[in-house]
Amino acid sequence: MAKPSIPQGTRDFSADVVRKRNYIFSTIRSAFELYGFEPLETPAMENLDTLMGKYGEEGDKLIFKILNNGISNPKNIDKAKSGFEKALTGKSSSELTERALKYDLTIPFARYVAMNHGRLTFPFRRYQVQPVWRADRPQKGRYREFTQCDADIVGSTSLLNEVELANIYHLVFNKLGLWDYELKINSRKILTALTELCGGTAKMMDITIAIDKLDKIGLAGVKEELLLRELTEKQVGIIEKYLTVAGSNEEKLAQIKKLVGNSKAGKEGIREVEYLFQQTGNVKVEIDFTLARGLNYYTGTIFEAKAPPEVQMGSIGGGGRYDDLTGLFDLPGITGVGISFGVDRIYDVLEELKLFPDEVHSGTRAIFFNMGEAESRFAFSIMQQLREKGISCEMYHEFVKITKQFSYAQKKRIEYAIIIGSKEIEQNYCLVKHLGTGQQEVIVFERLFDYFNNLKNKSPQ
Amino acid sequence: MAKPSIPQGTRDFSADVVRKRNYIFSTIRSAFELYGFEPLETPAMENLDTLMGKYGEEGDKLIFKILNNGISNPKNIDKAKSGFEKALTGKSSSELTERALKYDLTIPFARYVAMNHGRLTFPFRRYQVQPVWRADRPQKGRYREFTQCDADIVGSTSLLNEVELANIYHLVFNKLGLWDYELKINSRKILTALTELCGGTAKMMDITIAIDKLDKIGLAGVKEELLLRELTEKQVGIIEKYLTVAGSNEEKLAQIKKLVGNSKAGKEGIREVEYLFQQTGNVKVEIDFTLARGLNYYTGTIFEAKAPPEVQMGSIGGGGRYDDLTGLFDLPGITGVGISFGVDRIYDVLEELKLFPDEVHSGTRAIFFNMGEAESRFAFSIMQQLREKGISCEMYHEFVKITKQFSYAQKKRIEYAIIIGSKEIEQNYCLVKHLGTGQQEVIVFERLFDYFNNLKNKSPQ
Repeated sequence: MAKPSIPQGTRDFSADVVRKRNYIFSTIRSAFELYGFEPLETPAMENLDTLMGKYGEEGDKLIFKILNNGISNPKNIDKAKSGFEKALTGKSSSELTERALKYDLTIPFARYVAMNHGRLTFPFRRYQVQPVWRADRPQKGRYREFTQCDADIVGSTSLLNEVELANIYHLVFNKLGLWDYELKINSRKILTALTELCGGTAKMMDITIAIDKLDKIGLAGVKEELLLRELTEKQVGIIEKYLTVAGSNEEKLAQIKKLVGNSKAGKEGIREVEYLFQQTGNVKVEIDFTLARGLNYYTGTIFEAKAPPEVQMGSIGGGGRYDDLTGLFDLPGITGVGISFGVDRIYDVLEELKLFPDEVHSGTRAIFFNMGEAESRFAFSIMQQLREKGISCEMYHEFVKITKQFSYAQKKRIEYAIIIGSKEIEQNYCLVKHLGTGQQEVIVFERLFDYFNNLKNKSPQ
Repeated sequence: MAKPSIPQGTRDFSADVVRKRNYIFSTIRSAFELYGFEPLETPAMENLDTLMGKYGEEGDKLIFKILNNGISNPKNIDKAKSGFEKALTGKSSSELTERALKYDLTIPFARYVAMNHGRLTFPFRRYQVQPVWRADRPQKGRYREFTQCDADIVGSTSLLNEVELANIYHLVFNKLGLWDYELKINSRKILTALTELCGGTAKMMDITIAIDKLDKIGLAGVKEELLLRELTEKQVGIIEKYLTVAGSNEEKLAQIKKLVGNSKAGKEGIREVEYLFQQTGNVKVEIDFTLARGLNYYTGTIFEAKAPPEVQMGSIGGGGRYDDLTGLFDLPGITGVGISFGVDRIYDVLEELKLFPDEVHSGTRAIFFNMGEAESRFAFSIMQQLREKGISCEMYHEFVKITKQFSYAQKKRIEYAIIIGSKEIEQNYCLVKHLGTGQQEVIVFERLFDYFNNLKNKSPQ
């Protein structure tokens, strides 16, 4: 057969990468748990009609659909043919594909809440760390299978939830060593107030989409786009004034109050942003009225976390408040607020800034070299005693040249080799060699556990 | 839209279930790490041709195939049509589906080893804990999406690997409290010797398949099946003698030596089983020559772990040695041995025997009740101090009736409520109420962390 390969846009994660990813996941999970969030896991597959129509026309095209099994079964053939005809016209049909891979964690979460709302305890604080799949064109930093990390509180309108989410960003990024991360906040209500100033909310989408591109195309580009989207010169003038609000958080608040502070939406939005800014205490937030976030369903506070300015990475997290999580599943009125971490990007940032701690790499603590048939049998029993006490170790089971065993240990980044030859067995000790420095110590068997246990306490994992 | 639902044979895992599953996963993972295995993760999707033809005709039918995206695109339509025609005749074609969901962890592992063998360090010890998908008819205990936990050592023929794998079963089941698990061992070589006695290895498959059913259909059933499979009365007689070998491990070994001890395969198989029995020390293994294990690729030692006899569950793990992991991917001669844990069944066994530890349930340690606007703002700052020190807690953000807050805490199984009213703020203390017993203590704010920290140490997680 052809050379084996994996699908474009997917990845194998070897031990080193798994460990580094787990370091990020467990840092995020611990923060979520610390704040009272509970884990949820939903299946990789969802019914197709749960997903279709939830991500816009472009999103629908990127959903991986699973072919129904048994389409060659005579009783299914007609249905499959009819489904295939529909698929060729760009429609999706459960006659050909009943199931699909989940595209994000939000819609499956909404589906879960709608299915179980009678049993759930509200406010419901859940977090979810799972892979999702998108048939996007793969490119640097964009994969077809990637992991999302979301936390949401649903069924509570209190702004204290927003304060807690900002604190979670702060906690996670600080634990990861990303002291210089930026956390931008805004409220969709202020953007609503702006559109009202521009003559009505009918233009909300156009304005949001254009503003969302500010980072990429600059102010001139946004103005051009707004004109193309049939806004008048006067309207564009108002938006320009809005986009050039600048200064410290306090100064921006003062300017924005003058601009949109008279409308109901403006007042509410300003109150939200101001409250969040005041209550987050030592969490450094930057009020940024140009923050729009593309996702349609946000209705209140919006968040965006950015990597430290010394790396060119942009957004490493985002979120916001929504009014109606489950309306699409016939359960209206469920409000909530949530955030998400972009793990793949965070990984690249930590790699670039060399922020993964050394301990992340360690697997096996020590290797017992194989010094012969009888020697290795003896060493095996010593090894089992270490393992029983929790020291991770292994033995080279084949009796081969020591250089080969050395090279194995080095490639696996094992720090210590334990050498037990016939002389050592006789005299009741072993040699412990640090494979990095070459330093060697004589340790009696009875002290071997203490030796490694003390090392462990010196560099805690 | 219709009432939301999830695909048949899939499950949502709520917090309680996720925590219990993670308890099992982390017990297994720790054991693998203790024995020097390294984690590997492969994508959910594999190229279709990596999977097809590897699981037999029945297996192929159970693979979930992913419809190619963009089949309605004019430049793809002809290809898709041709692929669909093939699919209707029961063939799979990359013109319609290039990718599929992985069916087990072994073939993706073999594909990984074949792709990366130049970079890997042999012997290569890897473990993998990931979901797999099968379009099997769902039934009790059988799901379409379920998690496998595998550990394999490839590139080493030493029987010490088998000894270690038996030890891992012992360690994991003991940690989980399943003291009475059974671990059966055999060698495929002994089965080979038996078939040789019956006139040649051409009948190996028939004999293995029939013996594999012994538990289900009994000796009479196996004999009947063997006759149906065109074995002679004389051959069936030999097999009957083989299947009735009984007694202690030592007695069984003595009997089997008489039966198949003269052939080369028999000698080797007996040596393997005897060695494993002798070297596993305090690990209780049961030699069972009727153990066959259906999977074709095993060539040496085979393992099967069974749940304690007081639960009707059968196999909760299995594995064995194979000669040629990657031959299907043009890399012959890679030998190895591996084991697997059946997590869903282990979950059911622990549930039935009530073996999940109490700590598994705990998420949030304490809830701060909301006693009013000003009070909750004060309590929030106290809460943040606890969180900073690692105590997981939360606050009811809405100021609602205490009974409602109580009920929320109880449903979420939170053990302690912390009550801070205006009087408490004034006098610098809070009330800590155990929600199970109703007992209440007065704790000054400065001692609150110590209070929870001491509790934590009393019941370690």
